[in-house]
Amino acid sequence: MSYDSIYEQRKSIEQVEESSSFAPKFDENGLIPVITTDYISGEVLMQGFMNREALYKTLELGQAVYFSRSRKVLWHKGKTSGLYQIVQEIRIDDDQDCIWLRVDVQGGASCHVGYRSCFYRSIPFGKNFNKDSVDLSFEESKKVFDPTEVYKDAPNPTIL
Amino acid sequence: MSYDSIYEQRKSIEQVEESSSFAPKFDENGLIPVITTDYISGEVLMQGFMNREALYKTLELGQAVYFSRSRKVLWHKGKTSGLYQIVQEIRIDDDQDCIWLRVDVQGGASCHVGYRSCFYRSIPFGKNFNKDSVDLSFEESKKVFDPTEVYKDAPNPTIL
Repeated sequence: MSYDSIYEQRKSIEQVEESSSFAPKFDENGLIPVITTDYISGEVLMQGFMNREALYKTLELGQAVYFSRSRKVLWHKGKTSGLYQIVQEIRIDDDQDCIWLRVDVQGGASCHVGYRSCFYRSIPFGKNFNKDSVDLSFEESKKVFDPTEVYKDAPNPTIL
Repeated sequence: MSYDSIYEQRKSIEQVEESSSFAPKFDENGLIPVITTDYISGEVLMQGFMNREALYKTLELGQAVYFSRSRKVLWHKGKTSGLYQIVQEIRIDDDQDCIWLRVDVQGGASCHVGYRSCFYRSIPFGKNFNKDSVDLSFEESKKVFDPTEVYKDAPNPTIL
């Protein structure tokens, strides 16, 4: 099956920016970046990628389906952990090269490390910036779940 | 000047995910993706990229400095339009390959098309998904500024 049927060709800046034509831009690896936020709190939960099939399935299903760059497979978020992301709204940006997913998360956690958000640490800046030593601060005090129990022996997706 | 002094080497998954070590991952083009949200509303305003210098300058200055992929230069957001992004918080994700900027926007608009957010259109999904015709919906009814007046003859950054 071709998932390309829903994607229009990119013909002009006016079409892409000012019309209702759905003409997303996939990069040289066939991927588009996705920002996922909590529908209620607005908190950024994660940043992932979709290929043509993942975006099609997300639209069809109303649940987040990503493409895993480390495992190189379609990745229906929550399939292993039960923490599905239920889509409440999907937006696309001006030049249609980025997707914004607004979701409700079953179980309240989105991060494989066990935190609510993947963005659980802040970076000091401005008057707190010290070019000789930048130390991250933890903004979430407690993990929502224990990843060793939920994911068991699954390999950690982080690539050094 | 080397901007690398503030970035630590990536040595282990534990260091990257569980410690306060600041060890961001720049991709093969030397870039890291950045999600920028409105500090008050939580709305996603834009998605951009930073190189090592842009991230350093953002931390030092407390205003968003990106790297423009189309123009291949450092891009102090607001320099042309006056719509500077004042950083209120900066976060980094679990594997440190994505930045989340929470900002106040002077002038209230972040999008070169003239809207408040770059994500001014939604995509129908779930029961509203029609594989034969996907039409975007406009979620912002009015532009905040007229881009032809603000940017004058500057080339449009959108690449087809």
